[in-house]
Amino acid sequence: MPRYRARVAYVGTDFHGWQRQTNAPRTVQAVLERALGGLARASVKVEGAGRTDAGVHADGQVAHFDLPRELDPRTVREAVNAALPPDVRLLDVARAPESFHARFDARWKEYLYRWSRAEVILPREAPFVAPISPRAQAGRMREAAAALPGRRDFSVFAVRLSKSESGVRTLESVTVEEAGDELRALFRGEGFLRGMVRSIAGVLADAARGKVPASRARELLRTGDRRALSPKAPAKGLTLLRVGYGDGVRS
Amino acid sequence: MPRYRARVAYVGTDFHGWQRQTNAPRTVQAVLERALGGLARASVKVEGAGRTDAGVHADGQVAHFDLPRELDPRTVREAVNAALPPDVRLLDVARAPESFHARFDARWKEYLYRWSRAEVILPREAPFVAPISPRAQAGRMREAAAALPGRRDFSVFAVRLSKSESGVRTLESVTVEEAGDELRALFRGEGFLRGMVRSIAGVLADAARGKVPASRARELLRTGDRRALSPKAPAKGLTLLRVGYGDGVRS
Repeated sequence: MPRYRARVAYVGTDFHGWQRQTNAPRTVQAVLERALGGLARASVKVEGAGRTDAGVHADGQVAHFDLPRELDPRTVREAVNAALPPDVRLLDVARAPESFHARFDARWKEYLYRWSRAEVILPREAPFVAPISPRAQAGRMREAAAALPGRRDFSVFAVRLSKSESGVRTLESVTVEEAGDELRALFRGEGFLRGMVRSIAGVLADAARGKVPASRARELLRTGDRRALSPKAPAKGLTLLRVGYGDGVRS
Repeated sequence: MPRYRARVAYVGTDFHGWQRQTNAPRTVQAVLERALGGLARASVKVEGAGRTDAGVHADGQVAHFDLPRELDPRTVREAVNAALPPDVRLLDVARAPESFHARFDARWKEYLYRWSRAEVILPREAPFVAPISPRAQAGRMREAAAALPGRRDFSVFAVRLSKSESGVRTLESVTVEEAGDELRALFRGEGFLRGMVRSIAGVLADAARGKVPASRARELLRTGDRRALSPKAPAKGLTLLRVGYGDGVRS
């Protein structure tokens, strides 16, 4: 069966995350599978690069799926988009080798976390940014973030890591930027543990507002003591921006 | 009674425009009056600078209202925002002279119209941009727009202009910009006729994609022949950005 690869964007607000669930809440994977199933007139399984949590957004999730017959990728994109609800879209669709796997072949991912220091957040921005004190400082956030990049055991930031699972991941960079009222942290890494980005973002937010010392991220990595963790940052501030593969194709 | 002035932002998607209507659909004015009435425990009337159409957004609408007693403006803002639905917010509230009138005192307004040339528009952007052909050209839009600024009779672009009403308005500038896939037209003027911005935007869009000559805007102003008008651009692409007053306060 011909395999396809797609770049997917969604507003996570009204989704219970990416992954299909047995008790049938609304998930991105299930909504995509339903739309593709309608086109294929057969059951279609969709595999995503990252299993984003409930409420997390994506501008560039990548997924693969097999169709029972060869179809023009552009036709697939247009037919599926016409069947999808407005909060999810296939941005592009391409044929892929049968061996392509959206999750196993991913070399890196980029996540963006956005905070707003505005006293009142514009209604059109509110679903995509977490509020933070107007006094939060990018410099302190940057200082805290500096301890993170590298190949390290990030277990302290993970949610539900099984004992057999390694917590070692390579975080390539954490880039903190100011844009008007906004603070942004861009995370780029080979892989992320479940809950890791939001857990780190919670520590960065507390460092930015001076609630914990900027050395806290480094300490957490050293001690592994979860009692020193800050609350996880809210899902709505997080967006999966891009997933990279080894073929030079921007995904 | 003490008068207040507020800057208001809303996502217009789920509103039947600004103005309160007798048959009680959801309008921004009615929703604000209800929230303010709850705070004041009295009926409060809200007057806005611009009566935006159904589906039109605002980042900086200005409104005034009277409260039965003196209240701290910050308290008003916070109490009202806590009572408002998430698609409308008071960005700031200030005391104003009793003579201040949001509509009559407005010296200028800025409206932004956004189009996207993307083949697929990101779901988070889709409520705020109108789709346009990927081949639409900013240069042609700019050429068409050049005919517009000045003190002119804009009646040809007006919806339901009564015979006694003057169609003469001063349009200070129309600035066309490209931002990635987007085309944007920023309109700044002393006043706008009902439907005027969306009607002009429709002509600019047709000029950008080469469907009508760039001279069309100039011709329409000269001939006043509404049969040569393009379809009005969709409401969702339009945002009331700012309203200016003579007091030097940015509103």
